[in-house]
Amino acid sequence: MGESPEAGHTALVVFGTRMRARRHALGLSQEKLAARCDLHWSYIGQIERGRRNIGLLNLIRVAEALEINPAELMDGLRSTP
Amino acid sequence: MGESPEAGHTALVVFGTRMRARRHALGLSQEKLAARCDLHWSYIGQIERGRRNIGLLNLIRVAEALEINPAELMDGLRSTP
Repeated sequence: MGESPEAGHTALVVFGTRMRARRHALGLSQEKLAARCDLHWSYIGQIERGRRNIGLLNLIRVAEALEINPAELMDGLRSTP
Repeated sequence: MGESPEAGHTALVVFGTRMRARRHALGLSQEKLAARCDLHWSYIGQIERGRRNIGLLNLIRVAEALEINPAELMDGLRSTP
């Protein structure tokens, strides 16, 4: 899977950083998280690095696998820095 | 633009319904909202009907155009009904 054209966008990087922090808080590897939400571990890695523009449904699946409200991952995100 | 393979998914319908309610609260037409976030009005209509799996960056742009925190649109969404 390739990167999004928007790879590196600040909002994607902030989102990915939050996601990684929550994964670490749960003590999960990328592989374990990927298995929980039935996504590929390399896709999880790309999202965490802000390289992919994740879609709404995958975002919800990730939030569920991280045992949080999807709103937490989205709180205050802006399209400009 | 075609529909998402996930068209009609409950989470997409709930999201779209919230988006439409907020647009109406602001007294905006789909065309006016589309102009605010630089997206096509037909895309706005598809999202509001739960026919498209909106990406994170467009989701943020829509929330900004609706003058709300993107978290509000995502609150409590689940991947299963």
